Amino acid sequence: MSKEKKLVEEITSMDEDFARWYTDIVKKADLIEYTSIKGCCVFRPYAYALWENIQHTLDSKFKELGHENVYMPMFIPESLLEKEKDHVEGFAPEVAWVTHGGGEKLTERMCVRPTSETLFCEHYKNIIQSHRDLPKLYNQWCSVVRWEKTTRPFLRSMEFLWQEGHTAHATAEEAQEETIRMLNVYADFCEQYLAIPVVKGRKTDKEKFAGAVATYTIESLMHDGKALQSGTSHNFGDGFAKAFGIQYSDKENKLQYVFQTSWGVTTRLIGALIMVHGDNSGLVLPPRIAPKQVMVVPIAMHKEGVAEKATEICSTLKKTLRADIDLSDKTPGWKFAEYEMKGVPVRLEIGPKDIENNCCVLVRRDTGEKQVASLDNIEETVANLLEDIQNNLFNKALMHRNEHTYVAKDYDEFKNIVDTKPGFVKSMWCGDDACEAKIKEDTGATARCMPFEQEDLGDTCVCCGKKAKTMVYWGKAY
Amino acid sequence: MSKEKKLVEEITSMDEDFARWYTDIVKKADLIEYTSIKGCCVFRPYAYALWENIQHTLDSKFKELGHENVYMPMFIPESLLEKEKDHVEGFAPEVAWVTHGGGEKLTERMCVRPTSETLFCEHYKNIIQSHRDLPKLYNQWCSVVRWEKTTRPFLRSMEFLWQEGHTAHATAEEAQEETIRMLNVYADFCEQYLAIPVVKGRKTDKEKFAGAVATYTIESLMHDGKALQSGTSHNFGDGFAKAFGIQYSDKENKLQYVFQTSWGVTTRLIGALIMVHGDNSGLVLPPRIAPKQVMVVPIAMHKEGVAEKATEICSTLKKTLRADIDLSDKTPGWKFAEYEMKGVPVRLEIGPKDIENNCCVLVRRDTGEKQVASLDNIEETVANLLEDIQNNLFNKALMHRNEHTYVAKDYDEFKNIVDTKPGFVKSMWCGDDACEAKIKEDTGATARCMPFEQEDLGDTCVCCGKKAKTMVYWGKAY
Repeated sequence: MSKEKKLVEEITSMDEDFARWYTDIVKKADLIEYTSIKGCCVFRPYAYALWENIQHTLDSKFKELGHENVYMPMFIPESLLEKEKDHVEGFAPEVAWVTHGGGEKLTERMCVRPTSETLFCEHYKNIIQSHRDLPKLYNQWCSVVRWEKTTRPFLRSMEFLWQEGHTAHATAEEAQEETIRMLNVYADFCEQYLAIPVVKGRKTDKEKFAGAVATYTIESLMHDGKALQSGTSHNFGDGFAKAFGIQYSDKENKLQYVFQTSWGVTTRLIGALIMVHGDNSGLVLPPRIAPKQVMVVPIAMHKEGVAEKATEICSTLKKTLRADIDLSDKTPGWKFAEYEMKGVPVRLEIGPKDIENNCCVLVRRDTGEKQVASLDNIEETVANLLEDIQNNLFNKALMHRNEHTYVAKDYDEFKNIVDTKPGFVKSMWCGDDACEAKIKEDTGATARCMPFEQEDLGDTCVCCGKKAKTMVYWGKAY
Repeated sequence: MSKEKKLVEEITSMDEDFARWYTDIVKKADLIEYTSIKGCCVFRPYAYALWENIQHTLDSKFKELGHENVYMPMFIPESLLEKEKDHVEGFAPEVAWVTHGGGEKLTERMCVRPTSETLFCEHYKNIIQSHRDLPKLYNQWCSVVRWEKTTRPFLRSMEFLWQEGHTAHATAEEAQEETIRMLNVYADFCEQYLAIPVVKGRKTDKEKFAGAVATYTIESLMHDGKALQSGTSHNFGDGFAKAFGIQYSDKENKLQYVFQTSWGVTTRLIGALIMVHGDNSGLVLPPRIAPKQVMVVPIAMHKEGVAEKATEICSTLKKTLRADIDLSDKTPGWKFAEYEMKGVPVRLEIGPKDIENNCCVLVRRDTGEKQVASLDNIEETVANLLEDIQNNLFNKALMHRNEHTYVAKDYDEFKNIVDTKPGFVKSMWCGDDACEAKIKEDTGATARCMPFEQEDLGDTCVCCGKKAKTMVYWGKAY
């Protein structure tokens, strides 16, 4: 599709059809292009630039906390995958199998990694001997494959990009600390960079990772009221260590099993950005993660000095911000629509009149507000505006989540809310798998998490009426 | 193996057995750990940090030149791989096939990408319509799989990490310019960062990439006199465009085929670093690429104030250099050996006496030279020393290459040199495939490249004696 054609095509309104709105944006903001491989997409430059910003920010944080990056093979022999019983049960049904290589049938088939616990365990068994080798704090950036029946760009795809942290510790306490530490890294990143408020909590046993003792999660609420699991952190205890025989000699020279964790976030965070902040004109990107924070659009570019002045301003901004300029011969109107679609936080318009008056027009993507700004200290003015936008996006998302978080005290109320009011439902739960399963069957809502911030909503389970153990966030989820 | 044990084990001398010396270093410098998957290794933190430094440097350069990063699927359906005849013939024998996914047999098998030309072509066909869409300058960082019978860490492995640039242009001239531009980026990077001198040239038809019109290469010489192809850049002409139907409408609105290039370097560059600069004490890393440029080792650390002063110096150095300090309770001797093995360019020793005298001892990894340095301006002193080391490593490697580059005027001389003197042999060639094949069969040497810098070594082919067309670098290669 040519750029010129695109402008006239409108995207579906989000209120009319949220799913189509989403796929329209994904396509029209040049994030994704489909391929002939079912469930696999091309991450186009704009999407990949978002991912690079996510990577750089998280990677620095991981390294600050002492983690080191490694790279493991992408293949897992079937016998290795099978070493931990729960783990293989969880993943075997959704892997891709390599059966032939170099023109020959393999003696043992290998799957393409759906996650790399088994590979890290094999490696840890080789390199950990003494308490002095601990902790091992490793991370890997790679792609993984999970055979999904229904796929959606960023949210659920056969192949996706992620990071997977894998750590080994001397004690159960240290492993638990690491699990929570990394969950907090994810939560802070989502809130401070992606401007997405999250609920931190623990998954129910039913929802936890295959092979984990406990899974912790950050859950966020999309604009349509559906929940998105946005990052998870798992405490494995010594289960994998026992299955793989990962032992170290402690200070008394006694053999002990290590305690392990793993944690990951994926390119689905890009899906969250779209669904939390986007509107009917396209993407709306938080400045701290936006590939371009400010786009300079010259007005009446044929007039003498306009292109030059606009370029000069762009250069000034570039010193401290991710700024760019569009000097193409497209109309200003086309450019406005294009950078709105791409969610660039600030547009800077400058024409002959503005130059005469030593000013320009700044347009916020989040509110559409226009302001005339002096060219003196333009760098600072734009930087402050970006900070405002970042805060506003977070506050708007938080308000949206609060407005769409409900309390249900009995089951009729619960069902009614899930049925009519998209969002989170907070209610008490007895802790019984049967109630969790019943709620899912009756309403389609799943237990998103048992939040760290518990509230007292009564003593009885919302489903069975028996004694409640814990408060749970429920919701329909992506 | 515990760290304590490692020190006492010596690595094989490179003169005694170069191949074992190489694998010893790979293991003992903590670069690689083997896995249960044949031909696949773990890239340990130290190796991955080297790769990250290579990535960051090249990635900035690519972006400076207008390239954008994307991510393509890792799978290629068989029918897509088969679209370009030469290409599939070149790669089909060495791919891994996925035949089952999600518990079911696939209707069409898919290979794990050995390279992604076919995927980029499919994508370009979708997104290129007008001359305004050109050029497309894309790059991808990923891992690829090629089913190799014999494998060696970094040099030849079933899975390796690389970047693959793929570009599409309006004209053949632009594609040729891009091909050479990127070859020069690689050459400059190898020389300026890796301190590895390279010969730039064109591959013979026999050695060119499957599907390319012309392949250009940078060839470097390892310490044992074997050549290593260190990076390649391919001009595809419009061959892939015709096979995939990638057309654009030009300014006169006529349909034209695009012209394409691709270019790549891989983790084999780490192998080159080892084999060009390493010695019998381990790795020797050029400062510009070394994960740690200077390691501070306190002497008599139990003495009051030593650890504190050493830490203070390390902090000072960290402001501008990649510095680290080893405060572990291991002996200084152990630490010296460890950081020599890891090729850290400069060691800074500091003990109570040094502190009294406001000085420290600097030890160069490349020459073993020691010098006493004042703590005043230590940052600048170390920075200058690193610059010296960088230059010295390049000059040493260049001298080694020059000393191991021979001229052969007739076939007896040629065979004698290849037989007895490891290195490059320069000689004239008639351009006939038959001579190239005969030379390979008789001597094991292959045509490394037809260098851009041609020399006049006579008029006759070194093999058949007929009229010569071009000068060629020959050599045994990894």
